[in-house]
Amino acid sequence: MYYTIKRLLLGQPLKSNELGEQKLNKTKALAILSSDALSSVAYGPEQILIVLVTVGMAAFWYTIPIAVGVLVLLLALILSYRQVIFAYPHGGGAYVVSKENLGENPGLIAGGSLLVDYILTVAVSISAGTDAITSAFPHLHHHNVLIACSLVVLITILNLRGLTESASILAYPVYLFVLALGIMIAAGLVQIASGKLPADLHAPIGTPVAGISLFLLLRAFASGSSALTGVEAISNAIPNFKDPAPNNASRTLAAMGLLLALLFSGIVFLAYYEGIVPNVRETVLSQIASTTFGRGLMYYFIQATTAMILVLAANTGFSAFPLLAVNLAKDKYIARMFTVRGDRLGYSNGIVFLSAASILLIIVFEGRTEQLIPLYAVGVFIPFTLAQTGMMVKWMNDKPPGWIIKLSINCIGALISFSVMWIFFITKFAQVWSVLIFLPCIVLIFHRIKKHYQAVGEQLSLNTCEPAPPIEGNVIIVPVAGITHVVENSLNYAKSLSPDQIIAVYVAFERETEKQFEAKWNQWQPDIRLVTLHSHYRSIIQPLTKFIDTVANKAEESNFRVTVVIPQFIPKKSWHNVLHNQSSLLIRTVLLYRRDIIVTTVPFHLKK
Amino acid sequence: MYYTIKRLLLGQPLKSNELGEQKLNKTKALAILSSDALSSVAYGPEQILIVLVTVGMAAFWYTIPIAVGVLVLLLALILSYRQVIFAYPHGGGAYVVSKENLGENPGLIAGGSLLVDYILTVAVSISAGTDAITSAFPHLHHHNVLIACSLVVLITILNLRGLTESASILAYPVYLFVLALGIMIAAGLVQIASGKLPADLHAPIGTPVAGISLFLLLRAFASGSSALTGVEAISNAIPNFKDPAPNNASRTLAAMGLLLALLFSGIVFLAYYEGIVPNVRETVLSQIASTTFGRGLMYYFIQATTAMILVLAANTGFSAFPLLAVNLAKDKYIARMFTVRGDRLGYSNGIVFLSAASILLIIVFEGRTEQLIPLYAVGVFIPFTLAQTGMMVKWMNDKPPGWIIKLSINCIGALISFSVMWIFFITKFAQVWSVLIFLPCIVLIFHRIKKHYQAVGEQLSLNTCEPAPPIEGNVIIVPVAGITHVVENSLNYAKSLSPDQIIAVYVAFERETEKQFEAKWNQWQPDIRLVTLHSHYRSIIQPLTKFIDTVANKAEESNFRVTVVIPQFIPKKSWHNVLHNQSSLLIRTVLLYRRDIIVTTVPFHLKK
Repeated sequence: MYYTIKRLLLGQPLKSNELGEQKLNKTKALAILSSDALSSVAYGPEQILIVLVTVGMAAFWYTIPIAVGVLVLLLALILSYRQVIFAYPHGGGAYVVSKENLGENPGLIAGGSLLVDYILTVAVSISAGTDAITSAFPHLHHHNVLIACSLVVLITILNLRGLTESASILAYPVYLFVLALGIMIAAGLVQIASGKLPADLHAPIGTPVAGISLFLLLRAFASGSSALTGVEAISNAIPNFKDPAPNNASRTLAAMGLLLALLFSGIVFLAYYEGIVPNVRETVLSQIASTTFGRGLMYYFIQATTAMILVLAANTGFSAFPLLAVNLAKDKYIARMFTVRGDRLGYSNGIVFLSAASILLIIVFEGRTEQLIPLYAVGVFIPFTLAQTGMMVKWMNDKPPGWIIKLSINCIGALISFSVMWIFFITKFAQVWSVLIFLPCIVLIFHRIKKHYQAVGEQLSLNTCEPAPPIEGNVIIVPVAGITHVVENSLNYAKSLSPDQIIAVYVAFERETEKQFEAKWNQWQPDIRLVTLHSHYRSIIQPLTKFIDTVANKAEESNFRVTVVIPQFIPKKSWHNVLHNQSSLLIRTVLLYRRDIIVTTVPFHLKK
Repeated sequence: MYYTIKRLLLGQPLKSNELGEQKLNKTKALAILSSDALSSVAYGPEQILIVLVTVGMAAFWYTIPIAVGVLVLLLALILSYRQVIFAYPHGGGAYVVSKENLGENPGLIAGGSLLVDYILTVAVSISAGTDAITSAFPHLHHHNVLIACSLVVLITILNLRGLTESASILAYPVYLFVLALGIMIAAGLVQIASGKLPADLHAPIGTPVAGISLFLLLRAFASGSSALTGVEAISNAIPNFKDPAPNNASRTLAAMGLLLALLFSGIVFLAYYEGIVPNVRETVLSQIASTTFGRGLMYYFIQATTAMILVLAANTGFSAFPLLAVNLAKDKYIARMFTVRGDRLGYSNGIVFLSAASILLIIVFEGRTEQLIPLYAVGVFIPFTLAQTGMMVKWMNDKPPGWIIKLSINCIGALISFSVMWIFFITKFAQVWSVLIFLPCIVLIFHRIKKHYQAVGEQLSLNTCEPAPPIEGNVIIVPVAGITHVVENSLNYAKSLSPDQIIAVYVAFERETEKQFEAKWNQWQPDIRLVTLHSHYRSIIQPLTKFIDTVANKAEESNFRVTVVIPQFIPKKSWHNVLHNQSSLLIRTVLLYRRDIIVTTVPFHLKK
């Protein structure tokens, strides 16, 4: 049954040699790799307004200078990442760049924050996509969490089936989204120019505002910079580009930067001009769209493409997380299981882990985007800073021609990213303090895991360990629960191994049954030694393990091995399992974990 | 860690011989065994009003004749159960009485509905107790479900610790409740007599009411009879009484009937006179109390004792359910695990099952008492009817002196119970139809389980089966993952058993590693045959089981046994387990369920 459902959802398994990767041309790459960055404009401008609205609507004109600041930051990041592309043509994630140039711990900090960040990418993008849907259909609003979780499950299944980044179908929504927002911004500007929109919906630029402070403005700027999450995606995926890969990637990066800048500026300006006030039930983007077009076809087109690109942005998390996890797992910083390819050749453990973690986040935060975005953004700027600093170290070490300019560009990138990170910590400490706790914890865990794997390696290696002393003989213990066919079966098997000693053990709860059983046994199996144990506490495990310990102590002296033979009922129908006390399972677990006792399970298949 | 928490919550385990039962005197027995019945007055009168309010407040005077009907029903039940007490002095639950006199299926219907009923007792009593709490503290109202579930968990822990029915502390709340309600009723009557209460709060008896129908009145009567749930408790617990047990029990039953009648009539009358209207946020009892005393000390005393007696009523479910489950399990109708006594000598599996099921019900019904009560009541009147009918059959068969009178009393009891049951089905079909589905299902499951246990018994018995053919020899298969210390360990063990053949199996994912491994192996263990298998789908299990099947087929012909030796890492810290692929666990499960293949687990304890 389990397999049928699995096959239905995921399809037939693929052979290992069916693994192949398609190369991306620029048009497709732009669409696929920039969905995360471009989709950020769906929530970035809103975040600025959410901060400013605490002072009052008069402060909304500050969005314009703040947006200029964000655009400068964007330019710095694009130029810095352009250099990463040429320096690491095989894909330079922040983890690789930081580890190679700054050392193990900075690399782990970058890797750890990226892992967490991809989880947040999924949670934030899906929550924002759900907001786009429920803004259009307000009666779905109280099903937000359910819709978001269903979307995550859907993407998970698609990714487990092996939805590759190169699937052409993923390119359309991105271009449709750009098209839809482009039309909206153009239409809005035309309306403004033609005077169709009243000019008094907003306070003019420069209006003095009571209660505004540098702190608040920095906070709004930090919030707005969340629109830049995702710009690093292209630099991680250079091997997927057609040759000459670095050149193509760099041009794609420039195009993405331009699109992002245009959309972001347009939305910020329209929101300002139309005097949009953020509210919980409708996104800013939805408000702009309905102000511009009314709730007509065009409105629903914008909401639909927004929802789609946000879901696609979540999908980039599903591409990036498993790959980073493989890198970390190969370096032994996380569990080995993340390197295993599933039936459809995707790294299924990574996919499932990401899915579970993001669903958990969505449920805990009740799908409230604005609660997750600060965490997400600060988690992005930490690896940004580390990667740029890593590049600086690289230029200083390698000193290629023109390295001074390259160094300065990355230096500016590093300084700006670092400043933004600090602005986040200073202005939004209440929302991001947890990063300061969980990042060190993650790095510590990485180290602990690596240490464990190294210790295991040493213990397994034949070179570092002494050969085990020879086994001199075997003692077989057979716990018996009655005089039945099952016991006969186990005893026959034990005898066939011709060990040095067989001991049958019976645990009695009452004195009388003890005597009776001994008498019956001596009649049935006179040549096998029976030990009866009395259990005061109605537990089979306790007296049994105590006895086995005694035997094992004696056996150890003469290098004998102790084997416990346990029968296991295998019922014909699986629901019958609940009708049998699973003592054998419990006994096996307890014995294995205690000491060097070998446990042999003899199945007894019930035929009806 | 698990054990520390367990010991902290449940205390040290008790020895089997520490089991002892205290006998109850009448005062204590009345308190302990009648909490379920007496507590029903907290929600019974309210149920009548909830039905009548659908026609209008003018119809409220009908509560008086309906209450008289309920009192007649109570009298009939008390007289009938008095006879059960004398006929079954060792405890005559409906299950035993029905099974002995009416046959297996009626017994199972009674047993099944009682099992479900005890679950409902817990859910209804706890929900009603929570209502008493949140009526007093309205701001807790939206935490209803959480409070109810916490109370269930608390009672569960107390019962797992071994809270016996004889604990004296349980007697106080019952008498306090009777005292509190007694004072309230007396005070109310004094206020009425002294004219302090306005006499125009209610429609006078006999007021004509538009829209009233026989159907509605019967429905109100059925609802009111839910106040009688729990009257059977004394007849089940006769062995707990001091000698002469039947006489003491019968007097306790009479006393309980009297108290129940007084409290019920008093509450119904006050509710009628004070013109109380049922509402979701405050119970009728709480309204009467606050009308009579205002929200003073006395009010909170009444609410507190009500909450306490309702929690105690839930506790009677915790005493009765595990005992009935033991009876059914001994007759092999439900899983054997219900007969096992836990650390503190309580039937812990029954307790935990009851707890989980009632929490589930509370969550599904969101703690809404009025949704559960009809199900609960109909589930009570089915075993009532069966038990009384069983008694009739008994009198007709045994014909003791005066049997005609006994027969008539039980006959009246059976007829009234039967009618009430029908009234429920006719007037509240929408709420109780599910009984018609789940009761047959439960009985079917009982039969299936019994059949399975009988089949197992036959297959285990040495008398009915032929002795197994002798084992001619052993083949040992050792799956190997590399040339390591673990493999050496497993091979040494396999060799020490000196089987007829040892085969090492290696599953390779790539052709190159296959060749390399074979070369290394032949150098390391030249005398052990190595079989390498190629896995196209990156699965270890599939090629391995296929190979083992081939070996097993050949082995079966010559009556050889196949043993698969699997190494199992036992890490030093349990969190390390997640770092190792649990392939051995998976292989073991798959192999055991396939055919007669024996699985030997050799632990490899990691030392760091």
